[in-house]
Amino acid sequence: MKPHPFSRSLIKKVVVVGGGTGNFMVLRGLKYYPLELTAIVSMADDGGSTGILRDELGVLPPGDVRQCLVALSNSSRLMRSLMNYRFENGGLEGHSFGNLLLSALEKVTGSFERAVEEAGKILYIKGKVIPVTTHQVRLRMILNNRKILEGEKEIYLSQEIDQGYKSIYLEPFPTVNPRVLEELKTADLVVIGPGGFYTSLIPNLLVDGMCQAIRNCSAKKMFIVNLMNRKGQTTGFKTSHYLKELHRFLGEDIFDYILVNCQKPPKDLIDVYAAEGDLVENDLDEKRIIFADLLGRLPEPNVKDFMKRSLIRHDSKKLAQELVKIVDHL
Amino acid sequence: MKPHPFSRSLIKKVVVVGGGTGNFMVLRGLKYYPLELTAIVSMADDGGSTGILRDELGVLPPGDVRQCLVALSNSSRLMRSLMNYRFENGGLEGHSFGNLLLSALEKVTGSFERAVEEAGKILYIKGKVIPVTTHQVRLRMILNNRKILEGEKEIYLSQEIDQGYKSIYLEPFPTVNPRVLEELKTADLVVIGPGGFYTSLIPNLLVDGMCQAIRNCSAKKMFIVNLMNRKGQTTGFKTSHYLKELHRFLGEDIFDYILVNCQKPPKDLIDVYAAEGDLVENDLDEKRIIFADLLGRLPEPNVKDFMKRSLIRHDSKKLAQELVKIVDHL
Repeated sequence: MKPHPFSRSLIKKVVVVGGGTGNFMVLRGLKYYPLELTAIVSMADDGGSTGILRDELGVLPPGDVRQCLVALSNSSRLMRSLMNYRFENGGLEGHSFGNLLLSALEKVTGSFERAVEEAGKILYIKGKVIPVTTHQVRLRMILNNRKILEGEKEIYLSQEIDQGYKSIYLEPFPTVNPRVLEELKTADLVVIGPGGFYTSLIPNLLVDGMCQAIRNCSAKKMFIVNLMNRKGQTTGFKTSHYLKELHRFLGEDIFDYILVNCQKPPKDLIDVYAAEGDLVENDLDEKRIIFADLLGRLPEPNVKDFMKRSLIRHDSKKLAQELVKIVDHL
Repeated sequence: MKPHPFSRSLIKKVVVVGGGTGNFMVLRGLKYYPLELTAIVSMADDGGSTGILRDELGVLPPGDVRQCLVALSNSSRLMRSLMNYRFENGGLEGHSFGNLLLSALEKVTGSFERAVEEAGKILYIKGKVIPVTTHQVRLRMILNNRKILEGEKEIYLSQEIDQGYKSIYLEPFPTVNPRVLEELKTADLVVIGPGGFYTSLIPNLLVDGMCQAIRNCSAKKMFIVNLMNRKGQTTGFKTSHYLKELHRFLGEDIFDYILVNCQKPPKDLIDVYAAEGDLVENDLDEKRIIFADLLGRLPEPNVKDFMKRSLIRHDSKKLAQELVKIVDHL
């Protein structure tokens, strides 16, 4: 590592913006490197266990935060399994224990941010996990056919988004968490993606002040392109389509690096995946594009939660290796 | 402290047998003294949150264990509040977070004892908490009027027990946890009580091998007499009645010390309590009876769980002071 003579610190700071499984993979790999890490997490999640807790207890959505906490955790494998453990029967069915921990901590402390901080201590996390906003918000999307999709879950399940949409927004219109601005100011690299495009990534950019803060911060910006398009949402998207969509929200093309997987998954896996979506192809040939083999190996049996969602997924170690190469040259 | 020249260790070991609020008060006070502490906990609880978890998840009863863990915890006040926090709405309503922690840990580790151990680490407990048996058991009581009370909760709610009962037993008949035998072998003082007599104390003595182990261990034995009788259960019981009942189960009068409160609660509190039970009076005048002011002060607003159950209760500091005086002379 060659530190810049005027750098604030020898330890570089990486801020990862997203939520859900994509963030998990990036953070889990980076955890093992001497880096300062911050995860900024979308607050739009309202499906499954998280949705029930929001509705029944009036708490902020714990699901994405839990995944980031587990990714950054230096506690035992048992504690990490505990956080992802889902109850299987009765009134608790479907709730992951980590979600219950965050919701109970929010109730006891009276603050979601405090809850995240305390859960971070229990899990010995490396770095910080910060909600992009501390407002209770719902994600909404109005499609070209005038259908209104209410909530992240409905958007996640929709297969009509690729037919065009008029708008996507958070309601009520939330302001960015001031701590997020502090983190971006001192970042060396801001990473967006991979992850559910309209459900995990874009919702961060819909928070008032967030796009401006990302544009204006002095950090280098990287976009990690998804491996697969989601059927009916980003069907047929290539790298340039993702960038164009991001441009619409961010107001300009901000990315210094675009990380693209170059390793084709085995054909039988692509076939298995066909009902869920197609492979993202790259259509750009620019200096900022970094090609690398980022493909995950066969699913690990103990990472159940993610297996179900994606058989074709990024490898956390490979992602981290590529990111660290870039960070080393900042 | 004057250590006996042949004592195994300078640190004396106190083993507390019970479950529920009574145990909590004894352990919470003793925690601050240089003692080795072990709590042996009844596994008969099947009411409230614990009952639902037993029925729906098939786990061992977490409620009494949770109380002992919190009593022995050296973690922050926040963590202790979290363990006792009860969800107030939806499918989670009535569950205390600590119960969910123990049940999830039991599912993840596959063992209730391991779950208790891991929860003990999370809560930085001083000492050990050990279930009296690791069998799934139900407490049953057959009354003289032939009514069968199924489960600890039904027994807890019954107001007919003082009309006489034929038998009280655990089903299926469980054997004592071998770790309990180890703890008793090395104990200097075994403390039974205070606590729900038929619901928290006696269930420990119904486990095969437990009474024999208590009788045979070289430790001194102490009984702490309840402050209040439970209406319809131990109505009108004096010290001698409690001892006679214990004698029936233990096979002999084993107690070297009997700790009795000498401080009368204010009349208005006794009146408030009248619907639940009457004050226990002492009718014995023996050398082994220790009279002391053991009465708790006005309820602390942050110990909600116990406030509801008993306005007239033992003071954990006063209990500990009396116990330590005795331990110092062993």
